[in-house]
Amino acid sequence: MASLNLQAVCNDHRIQLDPINTPSRLLLGPGPSNAHPTVLQALARPPIGHLDPAYLNLMTEVQEMLRYVWQTDNRITIPVSGTGSAAMEASIANSVEPGDVVLVGVNGYFGRRLVDMADRYGADVRTMERPMGQCFSLDEIRLALETHHPAILALVHAETSSGVRQPLEGVAELCSRSGTLLLVDCVTSLGAIPLFLDAWGVDLAYSCSQKGLSCPPGCSPFSMGPRAEQKLADRKGKVANWYLDMSLLNAYWGCDRVYHHTAPVNMNFGIREALRLLCEEGVEAAWARHRHNAERLWDGLQSLGLRLVVDEEIRLHTLTTAYIPEGVDGKAFARALLDEEGIEIGGGLGDLAGKVWRFGLMGHNSRSEHVDRLLGLLKQRLAAQGALA
Amino acid sequence: MASLNLQAVCNDHRIQLDPINTPSRLLLGPGPSNAHPTVLQALARPPIGHLDPAYLNLMTEVQEMLRYVWQTDNRITIPVSGTGSAAMEASIANSVEPGDVVLVGVNGYFGRRLVDMADRYGADVRTMERPMGQCFSLDEIRLALETHHPAILALVHAETSSGVRQPLEGVAELCSRSGTLLLVDCVTSLGAIPLFLDAWGVDLAYSCSQKGLSCPPGCSPFSMGPRAEQKLADRKGKVANWYLDMSLLNAYWGCDRVYHHTAPVNMNFGIREALRLLCEEGVEAAWARHRHNAERLWDGLQSLGLRLVVDEEIRLHTLTTAYIPEGVDGKAFARALLDEEGIEIGGGLGDLAGKVWRFGLMGHNSRSEHVDRLLGLLKQRLAAQGALA
Repeated sequence: MASLNLQAVCNDHRIQLDPINTPSRLLLGPGPSNAHPTVLQALARPPIGHLDPAYLNLMTEVQEMLRYVWQTDNRITIPVSGTGSAAMEASIANSVEPGDVVLVGVNGYFGRRLVDMADRYGADVRTMERPMGQCFSLDEIRLALETHHPAILALVHAETSSGVRQPLEGVAELCSRSGTLLLVDCVTSLGAIPLFLDAWGVDLAYSCSQKGLSCPPGCSPFSMGPRAEQKLADRKGKVANWYLDMSLLNAYWGCDRVYHHTAPVNMNFGIREALRLLCEEGVEAAWARHRHNAERLWDGLQSLGLRLVVDEEIRLHTLTTAYIPEGVDGKAFARALLDEEGIEIGGGLGDLAGKVWRFGLMGHNSRSEHVDRLLGLLKQRLAAQGALA
Repeated sequence: MASLNLQAVCNDHRIQLDPINTPSRLLLGPGPSNAHPTVLQALARPPIGHLDPAYLNLMTEVQEMLRYVWQTDNRITIPVSGTGSAAMEASIANSVEPGDVVLVGVNGYFGRRLVDMADRYGADVRTMERPMGQCFSLDEIRLALETHHPAILALVHAETSSGVRQPLEGVAELCSRSGTLLLVDCVTSLGAIPLFLDAWGVDLAYSCSQKGLSCPPGCSPFSMGPRAEQKLADRKGKVANWYLDMSLLNAYWGCDRVYHHTAPVNMNFGIREALRLLCEEGVEAAWARHRHNAERLWDGLQSLGLRLVVDEEIRLHTLTTAYIPEGVDGKAFARALLDEEGIEIGGGLGDLAGKVWRFGLMGHNSRSEHVDRLLGLLKQRLAAQGALA
């Protein structure tokens, strides 16, 4: 032991801080969204072991409720131990083998991220492209499938950067002709807009905890169907990612309960409660609530003269993009709303950077009083800048 | 919208549960360990945005306090958004290029995991092996370095599966002769036993939140020094892992604050408080406390006739392995302790499976009253089975 004490401790980085005192915010941007108070209380429960019988039981509950929310019977349906991008990477890492042709529908920032990820796993990546604010038609998808014969087609159900909903009905039928797996980004749709993994023939899907589920970010729903499981079983090499390898993770989440990694147990306490509340409300009611409040917001924004980016038919109920009125400094406006009212709204990403605001109404935050408060403040502040139509 | 409502919702998996009611446990196994009550309260704070100025400030605080706890000036010192294995994978993914020779010291389960991970990133993996319970001498390390000329040497500072501390003083000097980076697993040592990243010349290190730091699992300290940063900058291809790519992550955690992924903000609230408490106590005091309580446990276990696996000189102060007395069903004994007393202890892993118990005294749980309670119960229960020496 003596040798261990020879080294003097350096106190250069030893700062002395006051107890944490983060501000209270109403999060009406692209996410995270506010968590339900019941969920926050669950996070503060004392941790238990990741192999404790009580925890194993909680895992079963979480998986079953996730199947309901995803509308799937998929055996491998779990929360990944990371935020939404980790679940996105899990979907790529477990399905892509080097050389696989992966066709990605890129109509925003998150489609672009899928391209980057698939490339890192050795895919031969092809893209279909659409400007931000638009989606892909079945005809375009059919043509691209016939051109590229991909092993995987990746689409973003809810493009958080633009506010576009990609219709998915009929896509799986096209995929089946070329033996293509359908992979779908549901980060901004799960629990908030209609989603039917099994009926729509989705093979791989991922989401997050901090939007439709009203839980803080940190564990992220993932589901893979039988065809994707088969591709995983048949692959020649190991999954090129240990932490997210579903063949190992399924031995923990499945019947065997073999230790893989120490789970983020408190985050799972939170998502358990978030899912319990959603099962109580029912997904139809949650979907209707999101639709109702989104429509209230759209009407209000348009009465203020704001122009919405996305056509109503494919506009997300969770996230609305509106052009910043001419003459308004969108960034300064958002910052003042945060500093003076404690309300967070989002700016644009990618091609829409600097041009739009993004307004989120997700999970617990999809409530008419929030819509009305936001609209009232926009009206007042835009008027003060002479920017009201 | 009409088409979205044509599909009927299936309620097969819609279970109705009571509010969460996880049991209270005293976690005296290999981890997770109990969290400090102040940390748990921080977890329950309402989330704020990952680009909120208040959150960016909290990130700076967390990084600075991590540098103190790690005893390093490393610029890239962050909590990875996952549990300890994600931070382990970050250390491999960011340092290994395909074909690199990686030498791993394997004297337990977690060394074996490093081999698996390095292999997935295309390393040419070589191993030094030692039975569980032993560590590597400087002579062995020198010989192995001369034999393999590795790009990276990976050692486990605190082998959670056996309870062995690997002395690290002098290893970096040997590594420098072959231009080898030193990568160290500190999952069960950070904040609890002496550790000096810079003085010991460690290039890459990772840990977890749920042991020495008294926080639940879910975000995991990681640090990389200038030589490792240079190797990252010089690599030919992208890091084969998007979520853990430090060249992207550093643009968020560094001065630029460029969005990478949505951070697990509440977990970071927790680790901020955990680190604040550790800065308040001081690492020397925390190390001394762990040593003191470990010695109290060792004395007690030995008085009960239990044989410890690891020699005192290299025995961890955080985790003690003891052989299960002859005639005792170790698994049933541990389960009874959990069910009847709410105390979790661990079983063996790998070659020690079924042969040992693992007793953890980490962070907030390294307290004499816990030691005494555990020893009292062991005495009583072993006596009842006629297994007391």
